[in-house]
Amino acid sequence: MSSWATSSIETPTLAVSTVIFALRPNGDGCLQLATPLVRRIRAPFEGQWALPGGPLNTDEDLATSASHTLRDTTRLEPRYLEQLYAFGSVDRAGGKLAERVVSIVYWALVGADEADRAIQSENVQWFWADELPTLAFDHNQIIEYALGRLRNKIEYSRIAHVFLSETFTLAQLREVYEAVLGRELDPGNFRRMVESTGTVEETGERLAGTRHRPPKLYRATTITAGETK
Amino acid sequence: MSSWATSSIETPTLAVSTVIFALRPNGDGCLQLATPLVRRIRAPFEGQWALPGGPLNTDEDLATSASHTLRDTTRLEPRYLEQLYAFGSVDRAGGKLAERVVSIVYWALVGADEADRAIQSENVQWFWADELPTLAFDHNQIIEYALGRLRNKIEYSRIAHVFLSETFTLAQLREVYEAVLGRELDPGNFRRMVESTGTVEETGERLAGTRHRPPKLYRATTITAGETK
Repeated sequence: MSSWATSSIETPTLAVSTVIFALRPNGDGCLQLATPLVRRIRAPFEGQWALPGGPLNTDEDLATSASHTLRDTTRLEPRYLEQLYAFGSVDRAGGKLAERVVSIVYWALVGADEADRAIQSENVQWFWADELPTLAFDHNQIIEYALGRLRNKIEYSRIAHVFLSETFTLAQLREVYEAVLGRELDPGNFRRMVESTGTVEETGERLAGTRHRPPKLYRATTITAGETK
Repeated sequence: MSSWATSSIETPTLAVSTVIFALRPNGDGCLQLATPLVRRIRAPFEGQWALPGGPLNTDEDLATSASHTLRDTTRLEPRYLEQLYAFGSVDRAGGKLAERVVSIVYWALVGADEADRAIQSENVQWFWADELPTLAFDHNQIIEYALGRLRNKIEYSRIAHVFLSETFTLAQLREVYEAVLGRELDPGNFRRMVESTGTVEETGERLAGTRHRPPKLYRATTITAGETK
């Protein structure tokens, strides 16, 4: 970036960032969508929170760059990163940057266990996705966009299961949908919706516990190649 | 790009390209997916065909850049361009480039009328999407990826209607699906699929003509905001 002054006419700087979502229990014991952010320690936007990321190294593929900066800053290593979108409006730094930066953004989901293992420090923290402060650059809009993708995708793919263990009750699955979609769902309608899509099947087991009629346990049906993309 | 030698460590060049699809009648009178390509007139890949595109100007947004190079090279002006993907593998130029280029690719559909109005010359031609020569860079893979997106999208959105006039018969709609998906569809199953999705409705009119029982005309139902995205 130091050579920007001489090359600015032709080459915007390229950065790669990542939005990570996890479902974490909030103070009320409900699951809520959370995302890890990194505090910027230099200008522009010094002291503000931003997505994990950094400039693209010329010897790294895009997804490799995303994984690498994510691991370095948060220690998170999601099994699968998906490209979300390239954000490149001319004015996206709000006039605070001499250089223009285009960000190619990846996103991924991690389970609660992996989220618990991530670095947390003064400069790396998890935020509730719907209670964000004003972030650096256009990162608030980027997270909004990622939330839209997640909410859209949960309705036609099996990604909800990333947030669950191998077997789960329909109530647990519904809790994931409710947390992601941000609204309550009618249990009967939800059951019919899930059964009609064929994305889950009964395991034949029931939840261990003391209840008189413990709820049935389900598992995700096999994923066809490419279906979650 | 001339400053590449001094800035290569930190800043890959950014290009924006566009994949355009139209359905055009082939020699057999059937519709077939076609895409316009531009012949490269300089190294690397001089003389080979490539997607319309060019380096990103620092004063242009990404989609503006895509529209602008598309209009300049082909005179095509689709109403709506959608971002497809950012392609940035380290080796995507097959060793033919000293500099690294990351391409942010847009895609769009155009109707047959607009396709007919596009520039055609020695250096700008339409190709059948499934009969492409070896293209410059990784543009064969990019078009394959765009075809996958189109085929996936036609099954859950209303984009097929871009290829049709305002009213159409179910046979015409099926012909569009068959051309895009590259396989024949059973007319009865197709009718039931279309009716179940609620994406079309009867107009109450029938196709004008001499047949004893001319087929019914349909139109697309109103599109909900965001649904085609």
